[in-house]
Amino acid sequence: MATATADAYELIYWPGIPGRGEHVRLALEEGGAAYRDTARTGTGMREVGAQIADDNLGDDANAPPFAPPVLRHGDALLWQTPAILAYLGPRLGLAPEAASAGAARVAALAMTALDGLSDEVHDCHHPIATGLYYEDQKEESLRKSKDFVANRLPKFLGYFERVLQGKASGDGPWLYGGRLTYADLVLFQCLDGTKFMFRKAMQWAEKSGKYAHVFELYDAVKARPRIKEYLASDRRQGYSMGIYRYYPELDVGEEM
Amino acid sequence: MATATADAYELIYWPGIPGRGEHVRLALEEGGAAYRDTARTGTGMREVGAQIADDNLGDDANAPPFAPPVLRHGDALLWQTPAILAYLGPRLGLAPEAASAGAARVAALAMTALDGLSDEVHDCHHPIATGLYYEDQKEESLRKSKDFVANRLPKFLGYFERVLQGKASGDGPWLYGGRLTYADLVLFQCLDGTKFMFRKAMQWAEKSGKYAHVFELYDAVKARPRIKEYLASDRRQGYSMGIYRYYPELDVGEEM
Repeated sequence: MATATADAYELIYWPGIPGRGEHVRLALEEGGAAYRDTARTGTGMREVGAQIADDNLGDDANAPPFAPPVLRHGDALLWQTPAILAYLGPRLGLAPEAASAGAARVAALAMTALDGLSDEVHDCHHPIATGLYYEDQKEESLRKSKDFVANRLPKFLGYFERVLQGKASGDGPWLYGGRLTYADLVLFQCLDGTKFMFRKAMQWAEKSGKYAHVFELYDAVKARPRIKEYLASDRRQGYSMGIYRYYPELDVGEEM
Repeated sequence: MATATADAYELIYWPGIPGRGEHVRLALEEGGAAYRDTARTGTGMREVGAQIADDNLGDDANAPPFAPPVLRHGDALLWQTPAILAYLGPRLGLAPEAASAGAARVAALAMTALDGLSDEVHDCHHPIATGLYYEDQKEESLRKSKDFVANRLPKFLGYFERVLQGKASGDGPWLYGGRLTYADLVLFQCLDGTKFMFRKAMQWAEKSGKYAHVFELYDAVKARPRIKEYLASDRRQGYSMGIYRYYPELDVGEEM
């Protein structure tokens, strides 16, 4: 939703990649919230740059953000994807009441998806140094990608399959309590990006039938009316040189 | 505090290392909470193992935890360090009210310390695969450690120095709002572990005077009466083969 109002949210994130900002976007879209997205303003690079500048000391209430995504809501300037989602969750009807055990459970599920299927996937093309190019760490990237596909990917997919088979997930395709939460949106986006980067391994994983509930969740999120409309719109950016990248030589898949 | 009561917390974590469990321990100790610690029961390995077993589907309310630390509180079984801390924070007087912007800010500060000075430090001795021994990835570890000390460590220390210089940190040595929060405890533990692993670099960083507020916070946490008593007790475990390890060949420090 593109209309800005006085109470609207503002997402400050790099233009040109879905990145970590995409988790915030999906929550705002599914929650039907009005938001301004700096990735679409033409001033995104400058706005992100100002937030993370080495001389930014923040303001009276807000510490300087370490990195985007940054979410502005009224006077609050929040950062760190899981912290933003924990803030948005109850406000958008995408998580149980804050401070409850349920809120902590949803947070933990989202954090586990981010750890395993976002951070670790990113590190597959940057295992040595985020400040170096991929081309400067290709050999190590291949070694890490092989380990990820053989060991880590089945571990994380198997974990979420178990969560979905467990009683706490409730009825239906969702991770927790029989209703859609932001953890489902996070897992969807992590799976979508991993499908883009590790095509062979993810095709194999889907065909194997071992993670049937995981791929059902993926499809169920994709079919949500607001998500479907969003994914088909020009607000959804394609993958390029962010977390999820397609390097044919890293697309190892036979070992899984 | 070792006394268990009906409402007591139970920390389920590996014995023998401080690890990620230490962040939960420090919060419980500073908050004066009663808790049982499986690391001290003699059954810790078995209790952790049962939680993360491949056939654990959780219970009616709780998904199976992905990894320890796990915190039991009544019927709730919570995991993921930042999710546990967000749950404990308001309950122990170590964070603003849940769902507030302040709670999200404290969470983001803690997550940033964990990302940079715990996860990245761990990856310095396991850059390729957590399932392999350090000895199987020594060359890559040295390369990553050099980059960490030259680029990442100054970035994170500099960031927290800026936070502490900013107005939102309030008066006194703390990161947010002029009062101790769990983010301070997390940063303390991350600094303490990094000092253990990267001795030369951290000595250089302290002597340089560039991060004076960061090291003042470290000392201020260490001087809190309950923390001081805890650190001197046998409840505090020494570093060994966990996140923070001392390998002389990785203790690179001159480049910083």
